Amino acid sequence: MADWLTSLKTETPQQGFELAITLARKGVGYTQPSAEIRQALRPVYESDADSLTLASQVIAIHFQTVALANNHWK
Amino acid sequence: MADWLTSLKTETPQQGFELAITLARKGVGYTQPSAEIRQALRPVYESDADSLTLASQVIAIHFQTVALANNHWK
Amino acid sequence: MADWLTSLKTETPQQGFELAITLARKGVGYTQPSAEIRQALRPVYESDADSLTLASQVIAIHFQTVALANNHWK
Amino acid sequence: MADWLTSLKTETPQQGFELAITLARKGVGYTQPSAEIRQALRPVYESDADSLTLASQVIAIHFQTVALANNHWK
Amino acid sequence: MADWLTSLKTETPQQGFELAITLARKGVGYTQPSAEIRQALRPVYESDADSLTLASQVIAIHFQTVALANNHWK
Amino acid sequence: MADWLTSLKTETPQQGFELAITLARKGVGYTQPSAEIRQALRPVYESDADSLTLASQVIAIHFQTVALANNHWK
Repeated sequence: MADWLTSLKTETPQQGFELAITLARKGVGYTQPSAEIRQALRPVYESDADSLTLASQVIAIHFQTVALANNHWK
Repeated sequence: MADWLTSLKTETPQQGFELAITLARKGVGYTQPSAEIRQALRPVYESDADSLTLASQVIAIHFQTVALANNHWK
Repeated sequence: MADWLTSLKTETPQQGFELAITLARKGVGYTQPSAEIRQALRPVYESDADSLTLASQVIAIHFQTVALANNHWK
Repeated sequence: MADWLTSLKTETPQQGFELAITLARKGVGYTQPSAEIRQALRPVYESDADSLTLASQVIAIHFQTVALANNHWK
Repeated sequence: MADWLTSLKTETPQQGFELAITLARKGVGYTQPSAEIRQALRPVYESDADSLTLASQVIAIHFQTVALANNHWK
Repeated sequence: MADWLTSLKTETPQQGFELAITLARKGVGYTQPSAEIRQALRPVYESDADSLTLASQVIAIHFQTVALANNHWK
């Protein structure tokens, strides 16, 4: 797999949040490597409230990590 | 997407809590970009006790991050 | 909304625990603002073991934050 | 309610773990104050594998807090 | 109950991981003290993917604590 | 069991992320030691959106630990 994560540093908190989203998706991607299957699953969880909340939770956990790596952009 | 997160600093813990709510919702918003679909899902999870607790949990995780960024407003 | 969170400081760990409960409930309250609906949901989750454990989990996450804000009451 | 949590300090990690269990149960107890109902729910979650894992998870979160309060008993 | 946790220190990260597993199981053991019932539940969660992931999650939370206690074995 | 975790140090964040995946899988592996059964479960959770999100969550928790052990690769 090509390099996709060379640093946790971002310029702004928003970019950090978006990196957290990338990390959450990569966690799914490593577990289910088929882009086709992942694509097929999108309509399922994208229209399920709890699935969306669960996805938001994983982002929240990664955002803690990214924020810490950036000293909370202080 | 326009800038929506330029700092994790807030003046009070309550504003920090409200920022945590924003972050939790943004996590959902990035995953399901359609405001229409998100709106349609609201009645479902807003009347389900566990869905509300789960939403509260994501807020709690983000509040940890925001609190740390603000040195817990000491 | 009136001020409800002006500080994370409490005198004792027990008060900190009770603040964590308040924070967990506020997370629900912001998501479902209708007190009537929240009241209607109480019997559901209050008699479901997993719902209670899930509620306890959100409290645990907030208690981490409050404890840190109080330097663990050392 | 009488004082039940005056300190997070314990002499040993094991006592800290047991305090974490107390905290997890208190989270349930504040949410469902009826000891009778809680007692009635015990057989349900005590014989469900996922319920037990979920309970163990809440203990784990509280144990993080207690361990930190005790400087990990170093 | 006999002493089973006198220190969070381990010599290697792997031993720390195994201690995290012990802690996760102890959380279950305190909640369901009957070894017989726990044994009966094993086939259920051991052949359910989500139950295994959930168990892995509790281990992950405890591993955070043990790693911190060991200064991440640096 | 042979040594599989001698250090939490990695050269890059990406290797740290991959170590987090290993840790998440090891948590499953210790709980269900049969590679055959784990293999049989793969198709189930690999095609279930929530199972994948849950797996991603465990990775996120371990990534926090690994990132901390590496001082966030600063």
